Amino acid sequence: MLFYLRFEFSPTSMENIIYLREFYWSCMPGSHWKRIAGKEIPSSLELYPIIYDYLENGWNILDIGCGGGKVSISLASRGYSITGVDLNREGIELAKDAASRLSPAGKPEFREGDAAELPFQAGEFDLAVMQAFLTTIVEKEMRSRIIREAGRVLKPGGFLYIAEFGQNWHLKLYRKPYLQDFPCTKEEGSFLARNPESGEVEFITHHFSEKELVFLLVDNGFEIDYFKVEEFSTRTGNRVNGFVVVAKKV
Amino acid sequence: MLFYLRFEFSPTSMENIIYLREFYWSCMPGSHWKRIAGKEIPSSLELYPIIYDYLENGWNILDIGCGGGKVSISLASRGYSITGVDLNREGIELAKDAASRLSPAGKPEFREGDAAELPFQAGEFDLAVMQAFLTTIVEKEMRSRIIREAGRVLKPGGFLYIAEFGQNWHLKLYRKPYLQDFPCTKEEGSFLARNPESGEVEFITHHFSEKELVFLLVDNGFEIDYFKVEEFSTRTGNRVNGFVVVAKKV
Repeated sequence: MLFYLRFEFSPTSMENIIYLREFYWSCMPGSHWKRIAGKEIPSSLELYPIIYDYLENGWNILDIGCGGGKVSISLASRGYSITGVDLNREGIELAKDAASRLSPAGKPEFREGDAAELPFQAGEFDLAVMQAFLTTIVEKEMRSRIIREAGRVLKPGGFLYIAEFGQNWHLKLYRKPYLQDFPCTKEEGSFLARNPESGEVEFITHHFSEKELVFLLVDNGFEIDYFKVEEFSTRTGNRVNGFVVVAKKV
Repeated sequence: MLFYLRFEFSPTSMENIIYLREFYWSCMPGSHWKRIAGKEIPSSLELYPIIYDYLENGWNILDIGCGGGKVSISLASRGYSITGVDLNREGIELAKDAASRLSPAGKPEFREGDAAELPFQAGEFDLAVMQAFLTTIVEKEMRSRIIREAGRVLKPGGFLYIAEFGQNWHLKLYRKPYLQDFPCTKEEGSFLARNPESGEVEFITHHFSEKELVFLLVDNGFEIDYFKVEEFSTRTGNRVNGFVVVAKKV
C-alpha cells in the first residue's frame, strides 16, 4: 500500500502526531480486521428486504466478511444454504459457536478466509452478500480485486448484494473528517475511525460516492440490477445515507 | 464561457458534428432559457412538504427561476406572499396570466429578471425557492454567483429551499450521456438534453453530486439545515434521484 508520511503541521494538526503510530498500523491492509476481537466487529446494519426478492430455494449463498455471523445466521434460520467467510479467526469461532445452537436444518457454515482469495471453486454460489464490508477495504485496487473475486465464485448470472455507506457531505460530522483526514487517507470519502470512548484511532473507514460504487461494479464484471439510497445506522448510532445494491454477474 | 471545440472523432462521435451548431448555441449561458417558449419550460417537480415546516405566516418568499409560475401560484394560493422571477419573458407573461385568475388575496407577483442580478434590495425575503433551477445553469462559477445573489436578497438567517437533480450513475440511461457528452460539456454530471421526439439537442443539463451541491452552498454563505435524497420525475417521465435541501443563510 502507498503510505505517505505527509502531515500539515498547523497548530490543530499537532494532534495528528499523537495518533501517528496507531494510524500507521491501521494502514496495514486488513490488519485491524484480522486483529480485532471477534465481538468488536461492527454489525449495525440489517439486511434490506430487497434481498428476498432475489433469493430462490436451493440457492447457495456466500456471506463475504461475515464477522460474527449475524447475516449468515439470519439467512440460515430462514432455510437458506449459506457459508460465511471472514479474515477474523475469533469472529469465525463466535459465528460457529452461535450456529451450533441452531437446528441442524438451518446451520450456516463458516470458514476463515480472505475476500481477495476466497477458499472456494469458481461458480460455487448463486448469490454473495457484502454487508458493510467494502467500507473496511481502504485500498481502491484491493476493492476491485475483491469484486472480481466475488464474480469468480458466483455462477454465471449470479447476484451480488451490497449494503454500503455513502459519502455524507451534507453532515458536518462526516464532512469535517473527510477533509481533515484526507492528507492521511489519500482517498476522498475515507477517514480515521476512532474509539468513541478513548478517541484513539482504530481503523480507516471508506464511504463511497455513487459514481465510485457503480464503477467498482461495472468495471469489474457486474451490471447494476437494483440501486437505492437508504438511511443506515452506524456502529456509533449515527443516521447516514448508504446504498443498497444488487449487481448481476455479466 | 469557456467553450472548447474538441471532439473525439471516433465512428460513433460523427453524430456529434451534426449537433455542433445547436450545441454551440445551447452553450450560451441562459440563451436557451431566454428563447424557449414559456409553456415549454419544464416543471415536473412538486414542492416537497418539508418546505411547510419552515414557512411562517407573513413571510416574503422569492421563487427563483419561476418559469410559468407553478410553484409561486401553488404557494400564493395557500396564502403566502410570493414573488416569482425568471429570465423568460413569455414564462412571466404566462405566470401573470395564470395569477390574474386567482383571488386578490392569493396573488403572487412576477417579474422578469436574472438570478445572477436579482432586481431586489438586500434582505427583502425570508425564504427563496429554487425548484430544479440550478440544473439549467451550466457554468460552475455562475452557479456560485447565483447562490451568493440569493443570499444577498435573503434576510439574515433566511432560508433557501432547493430541489435539484442528482447524478444518477446507477442508471445506464444517464451514465452513458454523462460520459459521452463530457468532451462537450467539460463538466462531470452534465449532458446534452435532446428533444424527446426529434432527438435534437435543446440545452445542457447539469446533475449534481452530493459533494458538489453541499459545497456550492457552504462555500457561498449557507449552512445545510435539511438534506434528503428523494426520487424525482424528469420532464420525460424518468424516475431519478435528486436532493431536497434547505440551507440557512449564515
